[in-house]
Amino acid sequence: MHEKNRTEIATLGEFGLIKHLTQGITLTNPESKYGIGDDAAVLEFPKKQVLVTTDLLMEGIHFDLIYTPLKHLGYKSAMVNFSDIYAMNGKPKQITVSLAVSKRFCIEDLEDFYDGLKLACQRHQVDIVGGDTTSSVTGLAISITCIGEADGKNVVYRNGAKETDLICVSGDLGAAYMGLQLMEREKAVFQGEKEVQPDFAGKEYLLERFLKPEARKDIIEQLAHSGIIPNAMMDISDGLSSELMHICSQSHVGCRIYEDRIPIDYQTAVMAEEFNMNLTTCALNGGEDYELLFTVPLTKHEEISQLKDIKIIGHITKPELGCALVTRDGNELTLKAQGWNPLKG
Amino acid sequence: MHEKNRTEIATLGEFGLIKHLTQGITLTNPESKYGIGDDAAVLEFPKKQVLVTTDLLMEGIHFDLIYTPLKHLGYKSAMVNFSDIYAMNGKPKQITVSLAVSKRFCIEDLEDFYDGLKLACQRHQVDIVGGDTTSSVTGLAISITCIGEADGKNVVYRNGAKETDLICVSGDLGAAYMGLQLMEREKAVFQGEKEVQPDFAGKEYLLERFLKPEARKDIIEQLAHSGIIPNAMMDISDGLSSELMHICSQSHVGCRIYEDRIPIDYQTAVMAEEFNMNLTTCALNGGEDYELLFTVPLTKHEEISQLKDIKIIGHITKPELGCALVTRDGNELTLKAQGWNPLKG
Repeated sequence: MHEKNRTEIATLGEFGLIKHLTQGITLTNPESKYGIGDDAAVLEFPKKQVLVTTDLLMEGIHFDLIYTPLKHLGYKSAMVNFSDIYAMNGKPKQITVSLAVSKRFCIEDLEDFYDGLKLACQRHQVDIVGGDTTSSVTGLAISITCIGEADGKNVVYRNGAKETDLICVSGDLGAAYMGLQLMEREKAVFQGEKEVQPDFAGKEYLLERFLKPEARKDIIEQLAHSGIIPNAMMDISDGLSSELMHICSQSHVGCRIYEDRIPIDYQTAVMAEEFNMNLTTCALNGGEDYELLFTVPLTKHEEISQLKDIKIIGHITKPELGCALVTRDGNELTLKAQGWNPLKG
Repeated sequence: MHEKNRTEIATLGEFGLIKHLTQGITLTNPESKYGIGDDAAVLEFPKKQVLVTTDLLMEGIHFDLIYTPLKHLGYKSAMVNFSDIYAMNGKPKQITVSLAVSKRFCIEDLEDFYDGLKLACQRHQVDIVGGDTTSSVTGLAISITCIGEADGKNVVYRNGAKETDLICVSGDLGAAYMGLQLMEREKAVFQGEKEVQPDFAGKEYLLERFLKPEARKDIIEQLAHSGIIPNAMMDISDGLSSELMHICSQSHVGCRIYEDRIPIDYQTAVMAEEFNMNLTTCALNGGEDYELLFTVPLTKHEEISQLKDIKIIGHITKPELGCALVTRDGNELTLKAQGWNPLKG
């Protein structure tokens, strides 16, 4: 946050602030008919299905501004919503952005936030079409709604997984969680001794995964290009284990995934060792990966194997078999949804 | 808020809570293809334009739970969003609801909130299609996004007002503001002496206007029935003066409104006198009326005059004439947008 060169928000007022932050925002998608400046945005999707997802992020629960630059926070706030639209096999098209800010924040802080937001939108061809900026008694609250589109026949739900389907996951898992652990450790050190400079050398990937996740547009494009429509899909925000159990329970099936197939980056493994944490547990329950988890028919084995950055980690079973992880030594461990739960916090 | 019979939210967890609150929610609109339970809701508007509006309401800024029952808050949170959709000459069809709650709240509190929300949705044929429930360090945050539809040619923006247009307003103004003042006074009294029971006899209308506003679906229906499409429209949330200046500035016109034509309820007038406040100022700047402000061509004078609960309060002028109120004694006072500004608070 800006400590020097602060311009107090009160100098602009609500309308002035919205105008200031949204100036220069233009609409690029033909589906965006009218953006910021009226009672509602006007969109048009004559031949598509309209996807709507929303997220509410609260300071102190979902992010810690001690180690989260506001530009990164803006970027991430948009990305996590795009990720939900991709998880339906759709394309994000518009977002609305609502912020509630306390007096602690200055205009420069919000400019940083919007810079991150705009960068994310630019990379994913998404228009900012509306929002709300207001005050808060304490802390920052961010609410983003993302609107996307999909061909009706291509929408992929969580409930379509079928027996013998292959379970696939993009990228690698657990890195964002390790990035968070690292940040928390450095924060504790920093609060103890102010002179110590954090050393993140060799751990950049973990920090990036945590601070600046990328929604997997590329995976959706690859799948479309190969003509593969998953039977079930969701994005991994609360951890692989929790999400897989959602798919299985909504699809009335069971699953087996294999410990040795879970994709994990080298830095994640090094860090887990340093923290003396179980690596598989981190990858299963870590959360905030924003990778895609999906199932495809067994007949697609060859095609899916050829796609970049997608790994087959197991298969769907009859419901009676439950959901389990097959460990390296061949044991079966029942999966548990111990995913990140902000309501227990 | 519930003080006895509290069930702690932690007993259910995030997914359990969402399931509990949303059970029994069914989709009634053909445009709602899939609601709660996946990464995004799926909607379909093949022949319509899609309207999107969003609001973020923060405890301590937008509402005070000392005098706002949670059921009313749920009802109002939905209504203010419906109002924005009507203000585009559209029909609200779906909402998503995100809540961030601190430990102070129990499950029964959130049930009350949802009861109000559901009642509002039922009355306006709106489906609850998604949302997010999470925790907050302090207080309650409510973010609602409303999706509506309109025929492309019928969407009414703020920027279409034309010289000689008649300026119309529905209902009456200033009552919600008086309701707020009354609540604030009773709160102060109550905090001083716990034995004093507030006496709201004869002031029920003011309280209802503040606690339980009604979005003016009926006005939109009347206009449609009469074949009248306003040139410009918005809803009055920040006060007549502020909203009229938005219409004029976006339409590049001026206006004259007449003090003696501003619709004011008898209870509002009595209360203003009791508080020793200027009644016209309250009606111009009060806010939270959620009435519709719109302009229609002069040729519609006769038709509009016959409609129920709509009053012509002035007319649009050339931009050079600015925006002014013509007082009862014939003076012209320049309008000021001193509407409610939570960022100055």
